[in-house]
Amino acid sequence: MAELHPQLQNDCLLLGEFELCKLLLMKDANYPWFILVPDRHGITEIYQLDEAAQRQLMRESSVMARLLVEHFQADKVNIAALGNVVPQLHVHHIARYLEDPAWPAPVWGACPARAYTGEALQLTRDKTLLALRGQAGFESAWKPSL
Amino acid sequence: MAELHPQLQNDCLLLGEFELCKLLLMKDANYPWFILVPDRHGITEIYQLDEAAQRQLMRESSVMARLLVEHFQADKVNIAALGNVVPQLHVHHIARYLEDPAWPAPVWGACPARAYTGEALQLTRDKTLLALRGQAGFESAWKPSL
Repeated sequence: MAELHPQLQNDCLLLGEFELCKLLLMKDANYPWFILVPDRHGITEIYQLDEAAQRQLMRESSVMARLLVEHFQADKVNIAALGNVVPQLHVHHIARYLEDPAWPAPVWGACPARAYTGEALQLTRDKTLLALRGQAGFESAWKPSL
Repeated sequence: MAELHPQLQNDCLLLGEFELCKLLLMKDANYPWFILVPDRHGITEIYQLDEAAQRQLMRESSVMARLLVEHFQADKVNIAALGNVVPQLHVHHIARYLEDPAWPAPVWGACPARAYTGEALQLTRDKTLLALRGQAGFESAWKPSL
């Protein structure tokens, strides 16, 4: 089990774990913004994962992208592994909308993060957890309140 | 064979083709910046590719990321599928350096593109083509001049 980088711990809420990755929700209500963090020590680039883990990452990434389109009605999905600031490998999955505050620019540095209300956070979390049941080995860190 | 989006045709140079993707070089000398474009009609998201194509995309992406570290001495690789402006699925692979003009910000919108000199372009192109020989079914669109 790899420890989460302090900045990821601070900026995100842990929702659960796929077979390979921890699933985080970014605390920014501007967009449904999820992060997959492969549970491997000392990895900074996707190509450093072995082939089986790369395939599993692709599976988990596709589950997340489909979720953003089918359950969050994203107009476009943005997927990115950057890591210029937080070296621990993590892959952003962000639902983008024609009317979101940064569109069509990428989200990084575009707008200050907007805090979730308690209700909105619960809704996003529960919708996600329900949709992910039984997908790619996902196990929730929460008991859905819906 | 999918037609390249006009903006990709305009901004990039075609270097060759992997088994799945066309390989483009972005005409921006600020960073070694490559783009993989899966040769499939009407695809805007990675999860829309079938499973075999997703696996091949992962292979080709890893070849490119490793190239950026091993042959271009990248401090960090940035990989991203955004597509907010150009809907045709394309995946950026960018070598980042602690001293590059946008570091540590993402490159999109950070700095105006800087034109390659003829010599620098030839060097980048030839180094890439030589390193990719025999990798993931790569076929060059150019005869290396080295």
